[in-house]
Amino acid sequence: MASASNRGVIFQGAGKVTVETIDFPKLALGERRCDHGVILKILTTNICGSDQHMVRGRTTAPKGLVLGHEITGQVIECGRDVEFISVGDIVSVPFNIACGRCRNCKEGKTGICLNVNPSRPGAAYGYVDMGGWVGGQAEYVMVPYADFNLLKFPDREQAMEKITDLTLLSDIFPTGFHGCVTAGVGPGSIVYIAGAGPVGLAAAASARLLGAACVIVGDMIPERLRQAKSFGCEAIDLRQDATLGDMVAEITGTPEVDAFVDCVGFEAHGCGHDHSHEQPATVLNSAMDLTRAGGQIGIPGLYVTEDPGAADKAAQKGALSLRFGLGWAKSHSFHTGQCPVMRYNRALMQAILYGRVDIAKAVNVELITLDDAPRGYADFDGGAAKKFVIDPHGMVAA
Amino acid sequence: MASASNRGVIFQGAGKVTVETIDFPKLALGERRCDHGVILKILTTNICGSDQHMVRGRTTAPKGLVLGHEITGQVIECGRDVEFISVGDIVSVPFNIACGRCRNCKEGKTGICLNVNPSRPGAAYGYVDMGGWVGGQAEYVMVPYADFNLLKFPDREQAMEKITDLTLLSDIFPTGFHGCVTAGVGPGSIVYIAGAGPVGLAAAASARLLGAACVIVGDMIPERLRQAKSFGCEAIDLRQDATLGDMVAEITGTPEVDAFVDCVGFEAHGCGHDHSHEQPATVLNSAMDLTRAGGQIGIPGLYVTEDPGAADKAAQKGALSLRFGLGWAKSHSFHTGQCPVMRYNRALMQAILYGRVDIAKAVNVELITLDDAPRGYADFDGGAAKKFVIDPHGMVAA
Amino acid sequence: MASASNRGVIFQGAGKVTVETIDFPKLALGERRCDHGVILKILTTNICGSDQHMVRGRTTAPKGLVLGHEITGQVIECGRDVEFISVGDIVSVPFNIACGRCRNCKEGKTGICLNVNPSRPGAAYGYVDMGGWVGGQAEYVMVPYADFNLLKFPDREQAMEKITDLTLLSDIFPTGFHGCVTAGVGPGSIVYIAGAGPVGLAAAASARLLGAACVIVGDMIPERLRQAKSFGCEAIDLRQDATLGDMVAEITGTPEVDAFVDCVGFEAHGCGHDHSHEQPATVLNSAMDLTRAGGQIGIPGLYVTEDPGAADKAAQKGALSLRFGLGWAKSHSFHTGQCPVMRYNRALMQAILYGRVDIAKAVNVELITLDDAPRGYADFDGGAAKKFVIDPHGMVAA
Amino acid sequence: MASASNRGVIFQGAGKVTVETIDFPKLALGERRCDHGVILKILTTNICGSDQHMVRGRTTAPKGLVLGHEITGQVIECGRDVEFISVGDIVSVPFNIACGRCRNCKEGKTGICLNVNPSRPGAAYGYVDMGGWVGGQAEYVMVPYADFNLLKFPDREQAMEKITDLTLLSDIFPTGFHGCVTAGVGPGSIVYIAGAGPVGLAAAASARLLGAACVIVGDMIPERLRQAKSFGCEAIDLRQDATLGDMVAEITGTPEVDAFVDCVGFEAHGCGHDHSHEQPATVLNSAMDLTRAGGQIGIPGLYVTEDPGAADKAAQKGALSLRFGLGWAKSHSFHTGQCPVMRYNRALMQAILYGRVDIAKAVNVELITLDDAPRGYADFDGGAAKKFVIDPHGMVAA
Repeated sequence: MASASNRGVIFQGAGKVTVETIDFPKLALGERRCDHGVILKILTTNICGSDQHMVRGRTTAPKGLVLGHEITGQVIECGRDVEFISVGDIVSVPFNIACGRCRNCKEGKTGICLNVNPSRPGAAYGYVDMGGWVGGQAEYVMVPYADFNLLKFPDREQAMEKITDLTLLSDIFPTGFHGCVTAGVGPGSIVYIAGAGPVGLAAAASARLLGAACVIVGDMIPERLRQAKSFGCEAIDLRQDATLGDMVAEITGTPEVDAFVDCVGFEAHGCGHDHSHEQPATVLNSAMDLTRAGGQIGIPGLYVTEDPGAADKAAQKGALSLRFGLGWAKSHSFHTGQCPVMRYNRALMQAILYGRVDIAKAVNVELITLDDAPRGYADFDGGAAKKFVIDPHGMVAA
Repeated sequence: MASASNRGVIFQGAGKVTVETIDFPKLALGERRCDHGVILKILTTNICGSDQHMVRGRTTAPKGLVLGHEITGQVIECGRDVEFISVGDIVSVPFNIACGRCRNCKEGKTGICLNVNPSRPGAAYGYVDMGGWVGGQAEYVMVPYADFNLLKFPDREQAMEKITDLTLLSDIFPTGFHGCVTAGVGPGSIVYIAGAGPVGLAAAASARLLGAACVIVGDMIPERLRQAKSFGCEAIDLRQDATLGDMVAEITGTPEVDAFVDCVGFEAHGCGHDHSHEQPATVLNSAMDLTRAGGQIGIPGLYVTEDPGAADKAAQKGALSLRFGLGWAKSHSFHTGQCPVMRYNRALMQAILYGRVDIAKAVNVELITLDDAPRGYADFDGGAAKKFVIDPHGMVAA
Repeated sequence: MASASNRGVIFQGAGKVTVETIDFPKLALGERRCDHGVILKILTTNICGSDQHMVRGRTTAPKGLVLGHEITGQVIECGRDVEFISVGDIVSVPFNIACGRCRNCKEGKTGICLNVNPSRPGAAYGYVDMGGWVGGQAEYVMVPYADFNLLKFPDREQAMEKITDLTLLSDIFPTGFHGCVTAGVGPGSIVYIAGAGPVGLAAAASARLLGAACVIVGDMIPERLRQAKSFGCEAIDLRQDATLGDMVAEITGTPEVDAFVDCVGFEAHGCGHDHSHEQPATVLNSAMDLTRAGGQIGIPGLYVTEDPGAADKAAQKGALSLRFGLGWAKSHSFHTGQCPVMRYNRALMQAILYGRVDIAKAVNVELITLDDAPRGYADFDGGAAKKFVIDPHGMVAA
Repeated sequence: MASASNRGVIFQGAGKVTVETIDFPKLALGERRCDHGVILKILTTNICGSDQHMVRGRTTAPKGLVLGHEITGQVIECGRDVEFISVGDIVSVPFNIACGRCRNCKEGKTGICLNVNPSRPGAAYGYVDMGGWVGGQAEYVMVPYADFNLLKFPDREQAMEKITDLTLLSDIFPTGFHGCVTAGVGPGSIVYIAGAGPVGLAAAASARLLGAACVIVGDMIPERLRQAKSFGCEAIDLRQDATLGDMVAEITGTPEVDAFVDCVGFEAHGCGHDHSHEQPATVLNSAMDLTRAGGQIGIPGLYVTEDPGAADKAAQKGALSLRFGLGWAKSHSFHTGQCPVMRYNRALMQAILYGRVDIAKAVNVELITLDDAPRGYADFDGGAAKKFVIDPHGMVAA
């Protein structure tokens, strides 16, 4: 491996990202050797809504952080302990970093691995408080525990043909799918998806793949709602003044749903007249209102332990005012946390490769260059109904 | 209810059915009062492969039996204890009769209700050894425990529009679906369906609804295989001389599947050169060969406790020669029994009503008159790639 | 049934209950006929912590309400539609009233039956807003949908011998068990039970029956903690000034548990210095602190939709200030609602009858007369480490 | 590690084992490097019933094979890739060897790992056709993929105190437990365990830990049945002439059980008059007779793909004559295969360490020296109601 140059997207403080020269990856994280790791030449790497939380300045992310945790690439170097992955393999990288050896990994809970982040369970690439692993909105990146973490695509040519779909396996497709699974979505379900950003659209596509009868997506951005409609969903514009139950009843005849998936998280805004103010508990409270007794609520949308930029003191400490008694009366269950990508990515890859889901189309992938990443961040922040996928070497465009 | 006439399909001995005048139903089964029952004017009633087992003379079914357990109808009379079903409702009748009050019903195991058949758990309409309940290939039928058993369609007009789909909720759609569920089929699965009769085709459509990546159907009748292909399945003609694993590998690149659904049962024939002889264990032995280690085998196809017409003595006692050690080495699990229709019919109704599945088209429904039933039996026995649906009052055709 | 007299425990306004003559039960609820019901001569009927919520004046329960939803009795009259229950049967009555015929009942969710309470899903005997069914702290009571609701004990003599155990099948034993099941308790688990009232102690006994390795119970009443220790649990006195994690770590070596069961609910008080003030969110926030990443939180403790007597305005509307972000970071799931008693009572009955659990001893049953009920309420409210079981006819004492 | 000597138990052909000097383990299997492995000084290593299959000459095991797959030890050397296990750790070794990196391992199916046996999924130490890994009835052994495979005991001293219990975590305790779990055993179950050898007794103890109401064990050796009774099980002597159903009904009042666990496998003998002849299908056919409709059948007992020493031709090819139709009529499910030890061993370790189960006493552990192993094999083959545990360095006896 003679290659020595690398470039990546850098967080430069609230509201600002730039593309800079960065170190070429090593098989190590500081003092920690990673002979179990590989180095990838990155084929695609996506901008994620959770990156936006950092870029908006809602976290304690330090300046200089290399961003990016949605990575697909080609293996160019294997550590000496890598046994089942080879140079040349085209692979998807789950955004959760996991050792494959701890109690949680053995239980399939790879989102809360105990060995990859000294400060808490769970790690990710290029993310604040997630273990310090270098991000992958770059030309090259190091992936530790490669035998365990990587999903190898069976055929290179086929992979390149479907790459804009397959790139979504690193995070949002499994994340949206996990939201649906934990909400109990199955054949025949009536599902409400809160939020039509990329995760919401991925959840909506997942609900359809799972056989849901009716998938209703709510958002305040018309362009995003049009996107939801484009693949068979019903759409609700939350800027209207009706109650959510009434708007749902107009579609299905009843003001309740079987399953609710919160793809918004803590930066939620109110509905109707209130939509300009941030109301971090509004989606969860809607969930308890709208979900039928006995229903489940899947919560892939991020809620944070601390939110210094929140509107009120309680929210700054991550505390939300929830009408929990309502959920209790309806025997709801609530399912939170990072999606353990590995639980789903192989099956979803098959669904893509056999043509059962057009996930890139559903979330409206736009391919951009690495240098265009700052524009992608800005457009996404502005509510573009797009999923920006960076093609750092121009290998996809080619 | 002044109506007093009724006509139905009667088993007249091996190979023969006729349409005869029969008693108008009462809210009783012999001495047993059924004030919990309703009388239905039948909208549709389907001929089932398991009826064929009786008609071919493979069972101890007595002459004079009124056939038919796949019933959809309109309520014309309610017993005094019926509380939530009303005259005029359009309803689907699960083929399993269940009391809703025993241990098994409370656990959702309505296929093995303990209170509706004195000789063993489980009952059905118009079937030998299944409790003596009068069959529904007729103009009218009585349904006991109506509040529990019946699935009411939400809207009459909508129901009539989709009636050829909805009629399949009484048995084969849930039965095929149950086969898939117990085989572990989900998004991304590679599935093999043994048999492309109506249950096999319903299983194939179910696998697709469940998100399977690749659904492979095997049979020996080209017309049935064409039917499978018509809605996106792969088809394997078992009259070829290749091994099943090789034929599967031609499609997927690997000679194993994730999930196997046996929609054939005890009247199986061998493959290749052997296909003219009955080999009751052949499908199950194939299942262990073809299913990957850790896979599951769903067995909706009927295996019987006694089979007087079987080719060999062991099979006459219901004993099969199974290569069980092979399954054990691969950690297979085997899931048998009647589908508990009620577990699935509401969800599958929603999938139909919201247009997520075209099950009538998948199984190739042909609507016939009651008088045409004998022809339907004969054509079906001859391998027609059709599902015959009787329209006894001409209400659907109208 | 010539018997015409009946007496029961009446709510007389905040803090007061009396025993009065009441109507002898009919097979009806107002205008609604209940030919599916039976009349029971009550053998035992228990005072429950959730009765206390009403008696303390924390609900809108009207004066004159006949209390009591934990009922065991002998059938003395059967409605005409009752088929599988007979006069003379000794039966346990699940506190949830369920029709056995709606979607939720068919799914086993009998705590949220759709047909027994016009104002919301779910009903119970003698409880505010739960459908208006007459309570069973009385000599006689009517049980609707008897074939579905009742659990018949197999042998009368055996039942009478174990009656103080079996009486707990109507509510708290299944409720505590459900809390454990939804918290994921199984063989080898480290479990924390919040609250050592009767439900907490029943949960602790359930955790042991489920094979938990270590069951830790926290409360502020020493007598209750002694009770927990009496059957092998560890006990934590929450009046201490240490953190909960530290106190748990003293026992197990680690400040986290695998599973957390909240048996306290909305009337929770703070720990340590704070324990004199009501802090309705304190148990749930502790749960997120104490439960390991990936753990589950079972919440059988009652949270209410409205709480007019709450300390602050938010709580009056049933809103709690929850550190939800902490739970999210740890991938917790939260499981709420009334226990569907029928899901568990048969199995727990077997565990009692075969001598595998001494639940009466675990919760310290004290048998009292009907006239003594007001004293039982007062003692229980004062924190007695007892479960008061009323023996209205003196049949148990005999 | 200067140590160079090693001794182990060697298969010398049908009916004969000896203790011989063998190679000291290397971090390799032939050409395959195992830098992920560790070398253990063996504390305890047990003789297993499945070893007997080889020793009796019922397999194609080659002479010279080092036997033993039930291993507990102390780490004396770590390969360079081992990160979370250290020299000095006391560990339990699951008998299934697994890579922790393949699809099956990621799904928790470590009994059928795809990367450790070139000829089929699944591997074990010292076993024919299981990948060629050297057995551990020896002084030292190599364990590959140590970070993934090993279960570390939290405290050395505590481990040594409970070592005769903990030694059973490598195989029979999880295996018996898995049989119960797959048979659906839970609180309140009525369970039948076929076979009172060590796995049967471990299954019986597991059933009790899982809360089963009544555990009935059947065998033909009185000493083994006494052992079952010693910890609260009911025992049935199969040499009696009654039917199994009748014998069960004498205990429980009904001739059926909720769950059935086959701890016998292919070397089964008939019951009653027939018990002297081998009848490989007899236990499975009993299972279908005895298990109630809707019940599950767990099959940890080994069934083989080929059995050259079988009584009849069909059995030689691993084919059994099963009354499959009877199981189908009762909606049974059948669960086979090697136990994935890792799924259970941590939880069962906790149950041991917290004193919730006395598994060594249940299976009647007898500690022997390495030189005494041939006697252990002989006694075990003769039906001794003992579990022989070899203490190769005399460290336990000390």
